[in-house]
Amino acid sequence: MHLSRYFLPVLRETPKEAEIVSHQYMLRAGMVKQASAGIYSWLPMGLRVLNKIADIVREEQNRAGAIEVLMPTIQSADLWRESGRYDDYGKEMLRIQDRQERDMLYGPTNEELITQIFRDSVKSYRDLPRNLYHIQWKFRDEIRPRFGVMRGREFLMKDAYSFDLSEEDGRKSYNRMFAAYLRTFARMGLKSIPMNAETGPIGGDLSHEFIILAETGESQVYGHQDLFDGDIPPADLDFYGDLTPVVDQWTSLYAATDEMHDAARFEAEVPADKQVSARGIEVGHIFFFGTKYSDPMGCRVQTPDGDMANIQMGSYGVGISRLAGAIIEACHDDKGIKWPVPVAPFEVGLINLKAGDEGTDTACGAVYEQFTNAGIEILYDDTNERAGGKFATMDLIGLPYQIVIGPKGLKDGQAEVTDRQTGAQESISLDTVANVIAKRVKQQRLLV
Amino acid sequence: MHLSRYFLPVLRETPKEAEIVSHQYMLRAGMVKQASAGIYSWLPMGLRVLNKIADIVREEQNRAGAIEVLMPTIQSADLWRESGRYDDYGKEMLRIQDRQERDMLYGPTNEELITQIFRDSVKSYRDLPRNLYHIQWKFRDEIRPRFGVMRGREFLMKDAYSFDLSEEDGRKSYNRMFAAYLRTFARMGLKSIPMNAETGPIGGDLSHEFIILAETGESQVYGHQDLFDGDIPPADLDFYGDLTPVVDQWTSLYAATDEMHDAARFEAEVPADKQVSARGIEVGHIFFFGTKYSDPMGCRVQTPDGDMANIQMGSYGVGISRLAGAIIEACHDDKGIKWPVPVAPFEVGLINLKAGDEGTDTACGAVYEQFTNAGIEILYDDTNERAGGKFATMDLIGLPYQIVIGPKGLKDGQAEVTDRQTGAQESISLDTVANVIAKRVKQQRLLV
Repeated sequence: MHLSRYFLPVLRETPKEAEIVSHQYMLRAGMVKQASAGIYSWLPMGLRVLNKIADIVREEQNRAGAIEVLMPTIQSADLWRESGRYDDYGKEMLRIQDRQERDMLYGPTNEELITQIFRDSVKSYRDLPRNLYHIQWKFRDEIRPRFGVMRGREFLMKDAYSFDLSEEDGRKSYNRMFAAYLRTFARMGLKSIPMNAETGPIGGDLSHEFIILAETGESQVYGHQDLFDGDIPPADLDFYGDLTPVVDQWTSLYAATDEMHDAARFEAEVPADKQVSARGIEVGHIFFFGTKYSDPMGCRVQTPDGDMANIQMGSYGVGISRLAGAIIEACHDDKGIKWPVPVAPFEVGLINLKAGDEGTDTACGAVYEQFTNAGIEILYDDTNERAGGKFATMDLIGLPYQIVIGPKGLKDGQAEVTDRQTGAQESISLDTVANVIAKRVKQQRLLV
Repeated sequence: MHLSRYFLPVLRETPKEAEIVSHQYMLRAGMVKQASAGIYSWLPMGLRVLNKIADIVREEQNRAGAIEVLMPTIQSADLWRESGRYDDYGKEMLRIQDRQERDMLYGPTNEELITQIFRDSVKSYRDLPRNLYHIQWKFRDEIRPRFGVMRGREFLMKDAYSFDLSEEDGRKSYNRMFAAYLRTFARMGLKSIPMNAETGPIGGDLSHEFIILAETGESQVYGHQDLFDGDIPPADLDFYGDLTPVVDQWTSLYAATDEMHDAARFEAEVPADKQVSARGIEVGHIFFFGTKYSDPMGCRVQTPDGDMANIQMGSYGVGISRLAGAIIEACHDDKGIKWPVPVAPFEVGLINLKAGDEGTDTACGAVYEQFTNAGIEILYDDTNERAGGKFATMDLIGLPYQIVIGPKGLKDGQAEVTDRQTGAQESISLDTVANVIAKRVKQQRLLV
């Protein structure tokens, strides 16, 4: 992509309304623009990140056997009256009357709708287990939306729903999502820790939050150091095999958020030199709630004995739009964002230090084409801006590799390359730079 | 994908509420399920089609130089008061009050929001032209939603918005979308004809509807036979070159919908043996409306002379969810859907006539793996259903190629292959069937 034809409205000043670094950088780097309180438009750079996050989530859901559907944003209030949650949900639910004066709502989550779909479609235990997920916009009318996309009102969530005949099978489905989540966040360059969690308005008695660490995290978390270096399940994990060892490994050591923290237990169970206390951000939340929805909504199947049984269900959320902010919270310095390759909007940034000069134009054009032919996503700054501005923008938007070509290097046949992650700089010959950097990029696309 | 682990709730009976064939088949083939009046959940088969349609639209928008963004579904009423459309829009607009009692709405279209984004970001003619598009759910509160996804209330639309300095440049942007649309629909296996159209609530004085022909189309259309065999612009079209010849070729002959039809002109301009009168479905609509939004909303740039000028704008819609229905209207028989390869949910269907039999299981497993390794999307019916049911389902869901393997063919080392489009049947040896059919599928992926 040539920057001269792109849409990247960078801000030089930090907008006053942005309290945390991810919000500041997302606005400054032209990733998002506020449309209303807690509601954002995703500009081209932001949308590319959002799509990469969603694609990773999707791949790992599919790997774990979940099947993608897409439910609508607007739901009928009557459906929520079946589960009893219409009155429970409070003012966070955006309630709507349509022109026929029917009560509708903008879905904050989808337990009711997916239960209805499943109830009307599946009649026999033979069609279990199933896990259906979708990636769709949700709305929660937060009284005080803040922190940009980290706590917006309209937000993109992946929510999966598992359906099983027995509680035992339901826990297997839960474990599959548990393992899938470890892989999902690791693939984005994040270390996530599952922590026991309260179940809140979703319900049930088994629940884990997946927390990533970031200095600017929203809540205090406590855990055993060894968890932070835990093994991520491999890509060829047999999701239908026994996943107890994976879950045990990640739940046997102490880990808790503020809400669930037990200081005495922490002191007793974790050796002093292994005690970690840090700030964390919730990026995923999984629940097993048995028959909480299937029972009142009549979602039953015939069992092998010919009886009818309520289906055992769980639900599994990932905050896709929130992750864009969370990754920045975890990956930045004082100049801007440092994207891990798998979620970077472009993998390489190319700066022409003297756009309009025949020599640098030709050299940049050749390097650009070599990267493109190698299947690397590259943003080429071919504008007339002065060098200082170009460097500042490139640091701000945080592409993993920066390639700079100017008249001076050109004389020696060299490009200057900066690794945004490490800050390491090196000169590489113009002939080989695309080849060398493309290889590094490809190695980093799959982190686990 | 193994059908035994998939989610494909097929209906044997035609649901009474479905008046037209696409609605009937989408319900029966487990593609969608109604959530509320005019609001649908997309089940796995339907979502795959929806995504393929969206991907084709996206590729052709990108090819024409448009840049993808994503605006939210919920918008502020104040923004629509700036353009004057908040009061104009009537009851089709879903109006909402949030918990702070602010007037909000579910966007039926996005002229106002994109104009605001552009106004706040772009200050100079140097940053023109630009075309920004998004693919997002819209809501129009139709008084009588009907025909399934063809006239739903919540629907997925691609809408693009062009920004130019002069009217002349604006028309060039319009022509780029005109050419892109011809390619877009042709790639889905559809013949689309651009027809002069009324501009309605969007405004402006230049507008074309893109109409596809289908016996069950919603409106009568009239045109010159030669248009129906017109040339589709090639993939390597220079979208920044002169596109007048493309537009002229497609607009010089008579073509009009009911609304705009002039019987006297039709008779006078079109020779009797070239007169086509048929049913049509609108799948795209493009508008050039100059300064209708930029003027009241103050979307201006500095010109080369240092003056300020209102930006010239156009907007360009494609009904993505509607197209899923429209393609079925154009491509079906009395047994079910006949998907063109580029939009088929899977490209090949494989039927095991005796699931559980070691011979057929092994043969099917090998063929399935060969297709998968060849990069072909295959749905494998490995269930215990009786043969008749399997055939009926496969015809209904309309995958382009059906491969049948049973004990009888197995003895001769043969698979039976049916081309769903032509109905042609042939025996192909088990060793080569994947290779032969994969080649045909790949040839049909890119129709233009």
